[in-house]
Amino acid sequence: MSNVDIFVGEIIGTAILILFGAGVCAAVTLRFSKARASGWIVIAFGWGFGVLAGAYTAAPLSGGHINPAVTLGLAVDTGVWDKVWVYLLGQIVGAMLGAILAYLLYFAQFRANVRQTGTTDGTVDEAVPTLGIFSTIPEIRNPVANLMTEILATIALVLPILALVGDDRVVQGVGIGPIPGEGAGIYGSGISILLVSLLVVGIGLSLGGPTGYAINPARDLGPRIVHQFLPIPNKGTSDWGYAWIPVVGPAVGGILGALIYNAAF
Amino acid sequence: MSNVDIFVGEIIGTAILILFGAGVCAAVTLRFSKARASGWIVIAFGWGFGVLAGAYTAAPLSGGHINPAVTLGLAVDTGVWDKVWVYLLGQIVGAMLGAILAYLLYFAQFRANVRQTGTTDGTVDEAVPTLGIFSTIPEIRNPVANLMTEILATIALVLPILALVGDDRVVQGVGIGPIPGEGAGIYGSGISILLVSLLVVGIGLSLGGPTGYAINPARDLGPRIVHQFLPIPNKGTSDWGYAWIPVVGPAVGGILGALIYNAAF
Amino acid sequence: MSNVDIFVGEIIGTAILILFGAGVCAAVTLRFSKARASGWIVIAFGWGFGVLAGAYTAAPLSGGHINPAVTLGLAVDTGVWDKVWVYLLGQIVGAMLGAILAYLLYFAQFRANVRQTGTTDGTVDEAVPTLGIFSTIPEIRNPVANLMTEILATIALVLPILALVGDDRVVQGVGIGPIPGEGAGIYGSGISILLVSLLVVGIGLSLGGPTGYAINPARDLGPRIVHQFLPIPNKGTSDWGYAWIPVVGPAVGGILGALIYNAAF
Amino acid sequence: MSNVDIFVGEIIGTAILILFGAGVCAAVTLRFSKARASGWIVIAFGWGFGVLAGAYTAAPLSGGHINPAVTLGLAVDTGVWDKVWVYLLGQIVGAMLGAILAYLLYFAQFRANVRQTGTTDGTVDEAVPTLGIFSTIPEIRNPVANLMTEILATIALVLPILALVGDDRVVQGVGIGPIPGEGAGIYGSGISILLVSLLVVGIGLSLGGPTGYAINPARDLGPRIVHQFLPIPNKGTSDWGYAWIPVVGPAVGGILGALIYNAAF
Repeated sequence: MSNVDIFVGEIIGTAILILFGAGVCAAVTLRFSKARASGWIVIAFGWGFGVLAGAYTAAPLSGGHINPAVTLGLAVDTGVWDKVWVYLLGQIVGAMLGAILAYLLYFAQFRANVRQTGTTDGTVDEAVPTLGIFSTIPEIRNPVANLMTEILATIALVLPILALVGDDRVVQGVGIGPIPGEGAGIYGSGISILLVSLLVVGIGLSLGGPTGYAINPARDLGPRIVHQFLPIPNKGTSDWGYAWIPVVGPAVGGILGALIYNAAF
Repeated sequence: MSNVDIFVGEIIGTAILILFGAGVCAAVTLRFSKARASGWIVIAFGWGFGVLAGAYTAAPLSGGHINPAVTLGLAVDTGVWDKVWVYLLGQIVGAMLGAILAYLLYFAQFRANVRQTGTTDGTVDEAVPTLGIFSTIPEIRNPVANLMTEILATIALVLPILALVGDDRVVQGVGIGPIPGEGAGIYGSGISILLVSLLVVGIGLSLGGPTGYAINPARDLGPRIVHQFLPIPNKGTSDWGYAWIPVVGPAVGGILGALIYNAAF
Repeated sequence: MSNVDIFVGEIIGTAILILFGAGVCAAVTLRFSKARASGWIVIAFGWGFGVLAGAYTAAPLSGGHINPAVTLGLAVDTGVWDKVWVYLLGQIVGAMLGAILAYLLYFAQFRANVRQTGTTDGTVDEAVPTLGIFSTIPEIRNPVANLMTEILATIALVLPILALVGDDRVVQGVGIGPIPGEGAGIYGSGISILLVSLLVVGIGLSLGGPTGYAINPARDLGPRIVHQFLPIPNKGTSDWGYAWIPVVGPAVGGILGALIYNAAF
Repeated sequence: MSNVDIFVGEIIGTAILILFGAGVCAAVTLRFSKARASGWIVIAFGWGFGVLAGAYTAAPLSGGHINPAVTLGLAVDTGVWDKVWVYLLGQIVGAMLGAILAYLLYFAQFRANVRQTGTTDGTVDEAVPTLGIFSTIPEIRNPVANLMTEILATIALVLPILALVGDDRVVQGVGIGPIPGEGAGIYGSGISILLVSLLVVGIGLSLGGPTGYAINPARDLGPRIVHQFLPIPNKGTSDWGYAWIPVVGPAVGGILGALIYNAAF
């Protein structure tokens, strides 16, 4: 895989991931959305199938990491670090692009966040804070506990991924994507990305309660940067004081997941 | 594949898609339905598994496009346009047939939409508007924003499909369906349609909030025509002023998705 | 496959199907159940994964029909009728066995249906009718509409199944189960049953609103017979006046599905 | 597989299972969790995808039993008992480890269980009992009925697993995991664990109502021991009087499932 392929693949794949992920948070949060208040099951499946959409799309180009924690984990596991910077750069650019796309897709809804009246039943509805659509916010603000939550949840992502894809695939540099020419001879024949996407649904359902499960530094940082600059009415704070935790926690978790994998397997 | 096979396959497949899709909207909307008010998760999985049912059924005959946006995207990608009209014709006929079947399946419920009393707890219940069962209605009426939503959501459908099925399959003209004689030697052995159906669940959950995600011109236009003529009591408007958006948006989105695919892959 | 294998396989598979299906209805209906009032999404996935459990278990012995509508559809398609009676007999016995197992699994809950007080918050709770746990009840009682609903919903089951499994498999008499020795060489390697179980989830979500989707004569008749005789307090009527519809409708639907398949494919 | 591999694999796999399983119960139960009160569908999918995560991770090392009932069932089926003790030991240690990890991941939430005020809307919220996060509690306390429920639900787990994996795989000692070198040549290519995880979702939805579906002695006993010692404020009783039922019931169910399998297949 060339650097250009990796860069382009990770941009597209991560943008799709965030389009779905920020999209589902917008769907459940914003007024005038058909999915408003449809609950945690919708959030978790929306993010999980965002992984499915993004990673399968990116797979032929970059292997479909779309998460710096996965890239770091694979680098620790294989000892190959020379393309890591291309992956990370693509992922952060893609995450920012995806956040902008989600904003455009929900443009009328975001704009309507300024209105204090106008609901269908005539009642007054408050504008909602919008950061939670883009980035994670802890339920209880406690740096040590929040960091621990993100580290453990990311280990629960990266360790199963490494066990799932096995050494063969990693050595070939294909990451979590299916191998070209294998199986039925097409990319779509691999099921490992399907399994990873269901794994992410499970992490959301089970481990997302305390912090909203960043488990991906780019997923949190990219959209937070975009949130800072987007002209959303009543958008509220971008909460930069918390921003380091969903970056450092998943990065540490990815590395620890790979170390555990190397020690045990 | 002969023109007759394509035509029949797309009629059957799209009819099944709309039977499930309009069916789940009827299930959640209409009085005297066991699934009434069961929420967005039901809508999204109902439509997604409608794709699974319709596309796997159509696959042996036509490849299972069942969506003009997919057909256009594949034509742009491959440059082969001569059978496009057969696909589109089958899809629109199938979508109309499916809407009629959903009406028949929920016949007693549609007929009961005339009654102003008669709920099980004795309260008075208003008749519900029925267009939303057949076609999409935006939450906020804004042509530019609605069009942008449909274009982006359809790119998020067609681009992953093209990445998933790869060039081999498209060149053979099989579309998104599994290839006969490949894998375990049967149609059911291909998982790409399963992946596409989960992708559609994800699009519903994440991107359906503003407009109800047509992402398929036939899915919206066919049932709208049927709604115009069906003798449903208190059926409300067929809203022809909005009808061009869920046709043009997905068509543009399908073409753009293919152009992005060709540029990047 | 010997007659004994088919008979035993269909008994076990159908019993598991009904254990899960009646089980999930008990879970959502009965007091003192952790899943009480958890909604239509739970019902639909519970029945769908009951198909997964029952059909994969029966597959090595009988091919895993576990539904007379499927057996009839396959017989119409292949013209082979000599083992149909063994399938049907196993299915009805299995359905009765499964209903008894569900009763035993929820024994304390069924027994508690007699108590008029005793909820955890001290309020008085009425006994609930129990037939809906075992068999289907229409929301609106209208024989023509109910029959039409069951016929259409069963066509939507049998036609995709036939398209999915293809002619090869049917000719070998293996039904919808995976073929021994094919693929990875084990039964579990076939995904067609997974696809059918998701199809059944979709039918439940989309088409179950009017009648509760019997789509399987044995699934409705067997548990209704058991309900007639089980010593459940306050069990209510077994509603024999409706019993012919969920038998005749699915049988007709299975045959029509096969005729459509033969005409189109 | 060496004893060390089995031991390590079962510890890691069972720990991941319980991290997800206790995690989702914490997510739905505890105050200050984003998934609070999100319902039974979340519980069932959280546990099921915990099986997916844990069993795929353990598969390359131990075959991914992560449940003494499965280990006992396979031993009865194959007659090979010499490594059973290694499996059981790893499973109980892993279950304890997983419970501690879930506690750490929800650390701030558990600590906040002491506060009687402090909800976001200013109302007073009671501390919640916490045993249900770690171990099962019956809705109606009735030893005979509870035991019957656990036995039947575990048969509904082990019998389909045995039918799914077939004799070949069991004889090779690989348990429910995919076979190295088979299929696409990597562990991730096997779908039997995916099917088992969906089966567990179904058991939760359908059969979990009366007792909360232990169906796994280690899953209940390990976390109960941990609950006894963890310094959780207002944690409530560890309910040792009930503890034998979710150990004995699933063990008996696993053995009976294998005996039924051997008799019928």
